[in-house]
Amino acid sequence: SYSLSKMSLEAIRYANGELSLIDQLLLPHQTVYIRIASCEEAWSAIKRMQVRGAPAIGIVGSLAMAVELKSPDTLSQVDSSAKLSAWLGAKWDRLVSARPTAVNLQDSRERMFRLLSTDWSAMDVAGQRLAAVEWLESQLEQDVRSCRAIGEAGANALLQSVEERGLVPPGGQVNVLTHCNTGSLATGGYGTALGVVRSLHNRGRLGRIFCTETRPYNQGARLTAYEIVVDGLPGTLICDSMVAAAMASGRVHAVVLGADRIVSNGDTANKIGTYQIAVLARHHSIPFFVAAPLTSIDFSMRTGSEIVIEERPSDELACVAGQRIACRGIDIWNPAFDVTPAELITAIVTDTGVVPPNNVAALAKKLGAEQG
Amino acid sequence: SYSLSKMSLEAIRYANGELSLIDQLLLPHQTVYIRIASCEEAWSAIKRMQVRGAPAIGIVGSLAMAVELKSPDTLSQVDSSAKLSAWLGAKWDRLVSARPTAVNLQDSRERMFRLLSTDWSAMDVAGQRLAAVEWLESQLEQDVRSCRAIGEAGANALLQSVEERGLVPPGGQVNVLTHCNTGSLATGGYGTALGVVRSLHNRGRLGRIFCTETRPYNQGARLTAYEIVVDGLPGTLICDSMVAAAMASGRVHAVVLGADRIVSNGDTANKIGTYQIAVLARHHSIPFFVAAPLTSIDFSMRTGSEIVIEERPSDELACVAGQRIACRGIDIWNPAFDVTPAELITAIVTDTGVVPPNNVAALAKKLGAEQG
Repeated sequence: SYSLSKMSLEAIRYANGELSLIDQLLLPHQTVYIRIASCEEAWSAIKRMQVRGAPAIGIVGSLAMAVELKSPDTLSQVDSSAKLSAWLGAKWDRLVSARPTAVNLQDSRERMFRLLSTDWSAMDVAGQRLAAVEWLESQLEQDVRSCRAIGEAGANALLQSVEERGLVPPGGQVNVLTHCNTGSLATGGYGTALGVVRSLHNRGRLGRIFCTETRPYNQGARLTAYEIVVDGLPGTLICDSMVAAAMASGRVHAVVLGADRIVSNGDTANKIGTYQIAVLARHHSIPFFVAAPLTSIDFSMRTGSEIVIEERPSDELACVAGQRIACRGIDIWNPAFDVTPAELITAIVTDTGVVPPNNVAALAKKLGAEQG
Repeated sequence: SYSLSKMSLEAIRYANGELSLIDQLLLPHQTVYIRIASCEEAWSAIKRMQVRGAPAIGIVGSLAMAVELKSPDTLSQVDSSAKLSAWLGAKWDRLVSARPTAVNLQDSRERMFRLLSTDWSAMDVAGQRLAAVEWLESQLEQDVRSCRAIGEAGANALLQSVEERGLVPPGGQVNVLTHCNTGSLATGGYGTALGVVRSLHNRGRLGRIFCTETRPYNQGARLTAYEIVVDGLPGTLICDSMVAAAMASGRVHAVVLGADRIVSNGDTANKIGTYQIAVLARHHSIPFFVAAPLTSIDFSMRTGSEIVIEERPSDELACVAGQRIACRGIDIWNPAFDVTPAELITAIVTDTGVVPPNNVAALAKKLGAEQG
């Protein structure tokens, strides 16, 4: 079992073989933990969007599998290595089917079967089961460790940058702007970009965190604002249209936000609106940091122009909380992501270090070593 | 009586002494005209926000006064110049009290009393009454003429600019982005920035008009989108966060939007989000036009730094259509306007011509002559 620091919201709780998670469908107005006692219940929570964010989905799947693998019922079913392998394969298939586009579940499936055929191959079924449970249970801790590494490295780089630029005096407090949700609710607990903000706060260096609403789906107003309130961070919500006004008024010293995908030359795909925040940061001479785990880097693509931008249904923009806002009959363009060119990014913060965007390639070796 | 071109939405209808207007509280989902038969009914429509936009409020007040001044009931009451003057003063006071911050009503009051004490002073009461009715009825036509002048001048300047920059081939169609609502619903009928768009469309030169949602009050999604749909313009609604992505993808060739106040050096206060669109336009080498009547220029202020930015209630941002979206307890910053520095503005389009922003002072003389 692993317990998070009391400093940050526990979106996923796992202790003594019991798993529960915050029902994100009820946020931000109600905080209700739901108990997940099986892979089937995890499947349902993922399917119903009670949990979202690729890392969080991967962790919930892994922990649900650990819970079920430890139960006495399962013990009697998997009395041979062949049966264990078949059981695990069926459970992973079911979990992956809840959200086929969430790569983390598929990744976990592959990594587990690689271990079964290598490190764990010589063990008897009891040993394999124990190793599998331990590995599954470690996923939450791994994610938190990775996010804390991002947070610490990002806080160092960000503070150095704002001090070098004279935006804040040495040792002074820094006001940071973020976009979308990259916190506890999207990850296993600490957050990526919001992890950097938490690390600044832990050091007493956070003046204020500004979060954008993040239209059209309002992840900022609903989820990041919730994390700010729950964790007691000094934070302010603004509209996406107020970013430049906030910068021009001197309210913002730095930007830190997440990434859906970073490609070889450092170009970064992230939630729609990211690109224009980067342009606005450059115009106001404010540093712009991207924070993401090493696994977000996609070395199969050379530049951002290769990234296909998903367009989402128009109702997501036209309606808010089920009510139609926009005039009926109007044509709508609703891209889910945009691409920020590497030259607008001050640095990319990963769990294995901070690099300038044009040096992402240097991380390829580390990634290869980790996956090898 | 004055009838607008069938080409554009008639937000205010006035014919044969009858006044009606679109109830903007029911937009964009229902188009219902309400009849205004007296100053008291106009007061109520203004108070209840059934009509909004400073020019539209001024026109509705003037036309309601004309309707009432023409009625046989009034005829018997105002049988002397002194009684007419007292009657007009009382009616104007009542109208102004519906929205004391809307300068247009106060302006109309002052201009009418100036005429009563000069041009109309030698007339008998019947002649004064007739002159007053004619003057009041001319306000709608005046506004439409002013907006059409802005539209034509703006279309010329915009087309010249995009062709000179090679953004569209000579004679080609141009895609324009606008922000907030500056159309029929805010003015007497044709619109200011949206008037420029209508003029482009009339010439067959409009490719597409992109309008932003304009958070937090959604004037773009509700009102500009409505005008686009009703008038059959080729138009697309986007979030405020999608402006840079639209520009980077080549979808936008020019920006045109309105102004709440333009000061002596060309700095321009307008709906929050305007300033960042100007920064994004500059980054993408796209021309940025401000369209507004000469009366929007405030020569009493030297630079934009003198403009006090109104901050609006946080609920306007936290709630949409009466439903709370944002997490409760989060601090909110909700500025109503921002200031775009003159150097980011390609040109300012007024009803008396197009000037570079650093030459707004040249318009001072014209304004003085007009008001003299």
